[in-house]
Amino acid sequence: MTQRLRLYYKNVTDEAIGEEHGIAREELDHHKDQVARVVADLNRQGKNGELPYRKLPYDTAMHDQARRLADELSPSCRNFVVLGIGGSALGNIALQTALNKPFYNLMPPEQRGGPRLFVMDNVDPVEFEAMLELVKPELEDTIFNVISKSGETAETASQFLIVRHLLLQRFGKKGLAKHLVATTDPAGGTLRRVADEDGLRTLQVPPGVGGRFSVLSHVGLLSAAVCGIDTEQLLAGAVDMDKRVSETDLFANPAAMYGLIQLLFYQRNKPLSVMFPYSHQLKDLTDWYRQLWAESLGKERTFDGKTMRIGPTPIKSLGTTDQHSQVQLYREGPNDKVFTFLSVEHFDDPCPIPPELAEEPGFKYLGDKTLAELMRAEKVGTEYALVKSRRPCLTITFPKVNPYTVGQFIYMLEVATSIVGTLFNINPYDQPAVELGKKATFALMGREGHEELHEELKPYAEKDADYVV
Amino acid sequence: MTQRLRLYYKNVTDEAIGEEHGIAREELDHHKDQVARVVADLNRQGKNGELPYRKLPYDTAMHDQARRLADELSPSCRNFVVLGIGGSALGNIALQTALNKPFYNLMPPEQRGGPRLFVMDNVDPVEFEAMLELVKPELEDTIFNVISKSGETAETASQFLIVRHLLLQRFGKKGLAKHLVATTDPAGGTLRRVADEDGLRTLQVPPGVGGRFSVLSHVGLLSAAVCGIDTEQLLAGAVDMDKRVSETDLFANPAAMYGLIQLLFYQRNKPLSVMFPYSHQLKDLTDWYRQLWAESLGKERTFDGKTMRIGPTPIKSLGTTDQHSQVQLYREGPNDKVFTFLSVEHFDDPCPIPPELAEEPGFKYLGDKTLAELMRAEKVGTEYALVKSRRPCLTITFPKVNPYTVGQFIYMLEVATSIVGTLFNINPYDQPAVELGKKATFALMGREGHEELHEELKPYAEKDADYVV
Repeated sequence: MTQRLRLYYKNVTDEAIGEEHGIAREELDHHKDQVARVVADLNRQGKNGELPYRKLPYDTAMHDQARRLADELSPSCRNFVVLGIGGSALGNIALQTALNKPFYNLMPPEQRGGPRLFVMDNVDPVEFEAMLELVKPELEDTIFNVISKSGETAETASQFLIVRHLLLQRFGKKGLAKHLVATTDPAGGTLRRVADEDGLRTLQVPPGVGGRFSVLSHVGLLSAAVCGIDTEQLLAGAVDMDKRVSETDLFANPAAMYGLIQLLFYQRNKPLSVMFPYSHQLKDLTDWYRQLWAESLGKERTFDGKTMRIGPTPIKSLGTTDQHSQVQLYREGPNDKVFTFLSVEHFDDPCPIPPELAEEPGFKYLGDKTLAELMRAEKVGTEYALVKSRRPCLTITFPKVNPYTVGQFIYMLEVATSIVGTLFNINPYDQPAVELGKKATFALMGREGHEELHEELKPYAEKDADYVV
Repeated sequence: MTQRLRLYYKNVTDEAIGEEHGIAREELDHHKDQVARVVADLNRQGKNGELPYRKLPYDTAMHDQARRLADELSPSCRNFVVLGIGGSALGNIALQTALNKPFYNLMPPEQRGGPRLFVMDNVDPVEFEAMLELVKPELEDTIFNVISKSGETAETASQFLIVRHLLLQRFGKKGLAKHLVATTDPAGGTLRRVADEDGLRTLQVPPGVGGRFSVLSHVGLLSAAVCGIDTEQLLAGAVDMDKRVSETDLFANPAAMYGLIQLLFYQRNKPLSVMFPYSHQLKDLTDWYRQLWAESLGKERTFDGKTMRIGPTPIKSLGTTDQHSQVQLYREGPNDKVFTFLSVEHFDDPCPIPPELAEEPGFKYLGDKTLAELMRAEKVGTEYALVKSRRPCLTITFPKVNPYTVGQFIYMLEVATSIVGTLFNINPYDQPAVELGKKATFALMGREGHEELHEELKPYAEKDADYVV
């Protein structure tokens, strides 16, 4: 019980921030029945297989397969490199930052207890070359995990071609099976074909689960398990949360309450959703949230075809760092944001502050305290200041940061996304607007079948000197 | 000349994105005179010393002092740790990411050519302990640079007390002078007093320069120089840009054009300013920009006392990564954003893609291309897709990423901030709203003189069980 996340919402109410900006109890009550219907409907979809991500926490066969492969790979692995982008990378990065030590890759191997992890979610040539230079001296003990449902994503395909070539050069064809693991569609597609041809070990991108809902599948679990993260506890946390988010009572369901509050503020001209963790370890979960929220809820049309251009903009923030960067704007700028603090009750290392230089008032009060106390005080101080400026604040409290609580958090936000999407009457599981840019990239790179677009793109590639300063 | 940044603004015009969203040439012309007056006024303030940040690029004495100290520290330094937050950290991080190799800290020392750099801009206890564990075995060869104008910032003060205690324990009093460098107010304040007492080497936070305008002073230059960055070229780039941003002709002044366009979109209900670099190296410059823009322009009141709650919200994005996370929202969500792409013409390592598996159409078109080409194509493809959805796009092109172009970029945005602040009729150099949170933190931590606030804070620290899910 004490390992459960808590959502605290007093500081979004009219009682805390006034009637103009705050939400009244009656408003929550007003939506209670509608929310109950949506939750019940999502429960039904989860049970009958229409929403496959809802079954992932319970899929022990899937989990066992990832663990077995991790156990097989780990002993001789010194570098584990994920090749993937978007939903094939953000969860992996978030789990690593949250659940392994800061500066994990810099630690001596014996303290680390797992390989160095590199998640390459971009095609910056300088960055990719730098990664290759780092792992080349240890290539014998390096595993590459290419993650792509189709294999056609230009970024991942390019990375794969470069790495595959390097391995072929160094180790010949047998090196591919040893050093490459493909996580891809179980049935077909480019990467599936090539992986089978090359004799690679493979895992599955689960059918019917979009990238941004896939972190609790093979997509996120393999790299986590290889790096020593307790994936069993991660899934146990998600199972625990599944019970809570299946509650049809708004006041007992944290995903429903979180989602409804976000929706209500969006509707009252606060379209910016700031996630504000007071924890270094939780910071990359906000990038994962950015994708989940933006790609799921940013939609031009509703289910019934109305043009609405819906979409809250998720914003990544970090405490205390951003107090010295963003809080001036957050307090004095337009009242257009809802804040979600992520707060940690118990840090693993409190980090004591020695009671020295106590003759200086600027130092004295810090002595015999801890950085953990300071971190929590800064969070409360910042929330207080925001509330004084009538800005709505939620808090999600982590009793500790561990696989069990992180599993809860991930699953809670996934279900909150489904709930808000349904309340908005949009499809939270597609991403149609991403296609045009992909097609344009294909055209510019000369992929067959895209010649026509190439002409249309000319004015974009060749700059018009009249508009250059 | 070819090393100069270029600002391209065709894709914000009515010609590109239509009348409803685009800016007409007449609108730019309409503001020409007003902008000219503002630029002239800022030039005057720069010359007569009212805007000290404008003189930093020319301050060779200041620069020589930082370089000499860097040369003195470098030979035996294996770890260089910056203790600072906000304006005392974001510039340091941005310069390091932009101008040293990716994974710099992981490189073997002989390839690196400088110490590992840690910029500790938070008080997360787990992160700070992890840093200490990493450097303790090499403490003999570790330098800590504490950066704070007053020394009273709670985060930096705590870090300083912890590190100072560690050094005293290990090396005694003489260890402080050897291992600590303080960058602080030249005349007075807590840190200045303690630094003099402890016999520390010191550098200056320049008087009259706010943290977010200080990266081209000792604040940002020492860590850069110690890590082998050519700070002379950095300042030369800023000097070059100073000439351009002193032009009173809007159409010849990139800071004025950038600033005016941002302001016009803010006024027409596009309050979100997304900075979208297509370069791993430029990604942390967007965090630096976030502080500069938010803290300078997020203001409740105008100079004449009107309550306006002004403030564009700066958003950090990254290409190509965020195409798979944010572009769905950027194209289909509310048309409330202006995009600034940062584009790189020549990457140091193009990273070739080998022409293999050409029987697969999903791979064939990539063969014999480079990641650099792909990166540039993705940028053009994304801009094309955004323009098709009538979203305004600027591009700042870096011929290369090097100290000379990065110096230009920093200085251009600093002056753009002054211009926009002046056009908004607000004070872009203060941050009054940050104080209340600081005071609350003092109260919660038991600092003398803040007892009264302590009572007021109780309801914030002690949660109300009625609002917990």
